[in-house]
Amino acid sequence: LTPRQAPERCGAVPTSVRGVTLHRLPRIEDPRGNLTFGEVTRHIPFEVRRYFLVFDVPGEHIRGEHAHRTLEQFLICVHGSCRAGADDGRNKEEFVLDDPSIGLYLPPMVWGVQYRYSRDAVLLALTSDLYDADDYIRDYQQFLAEIRGGT
Amino acid sequence: LTPRQAPERCGAVPTSVRGVTLHRLPRIEDPRGNLTFGEVTRHIPFEVRRYFLVFDVPGEHIRGEHAHRTLEQFLICVHGSCRAGADDGRNKEEFVLDDPSIGLYLPPMVWGVQYRYSRDAVLLALTSDLYDADDYIRDYQQFLAEIRGGT
Repeated sequence: LTPRQAPERCGAVPTSVRGVTLHRLPRIEDPRGNLTFGEVTRHIPFEVRRYFLVFDVPGEHIRGEHAHRTLEQFLICVHGSCRAGADDGRNKEEFVLDDPSIGLYLPPMVWGVQYRYSRDAVLLALTSDLYDADDYIRDYQQFLAEIRGGT
Repeated sequence: LTPRQAPERCGAVPTSVRGVTLHRLPRIEDPRGNLTFGEVTRHIPFEVRRYFLVFDVPGEHIRGEHAHRTLEQFLICVHGSCRAGADDGRNKEEFVLDDPSIGLYLPPMVWGVQYRYSRDAVLLALTSDLYDADDYIRDYQQFLAEIRGGT
């Protein structure tokens, strides 16, 4: 399966995974240095309460592998590249995050993984809430049970 | 003048420049990849309304060179390194941003510059409001006049 490409022009596209959208953020190219930006709520559909940065990930390692019950996330690979997978229990897709002007919005109740980090990759996540261990679903069968209303 | 170093331990230190603080954010080191994070309001003293990323800056180029009348900013060099200068019209300091767990808080009415970008540097700015051209003071004499109440 070919990963879905981010749109060339500024804007967001829906995906086959429920609620997941792939974004091209504004870019301002300039010989003195390039700039890209995102605004709450025009580009990022939630109030940002926390960010985290993941870096120095060994290339073979898979990160993520969980869903959130309520948390919303907006992922940007701000340097280097990685791939992100999203899965709503019915449909799954893979995305290439290889440019700081590409954003991936992950709503609650989507199983997310990130992998194939380049050595120099830095992944920025903007999130809608503070860390809460109880918001994580770390078992895929449990995730399927919860989306099917089986808990 | 030696640049002020970020604290080794998680926390913030005041500087000689009015309102400017230098932060060491939490770090979680892990062989599967490292993580650092910041929370609104525990680490970042404002609601985040916008972010921007600056990258591919030629090494000789100086960015910034302006003050904001009302905008608050929190700067993190998320890959590579750069230096940041801050000046309140009376005191000025230089800071080395060379680690994704170092943050620099710039309040309104501080003249800011960024320079000595490494080739691979990516500077993340979290900001308290959307872009507003009228919030910028781009002339240093005008900046001095405004902080002295001389507008």
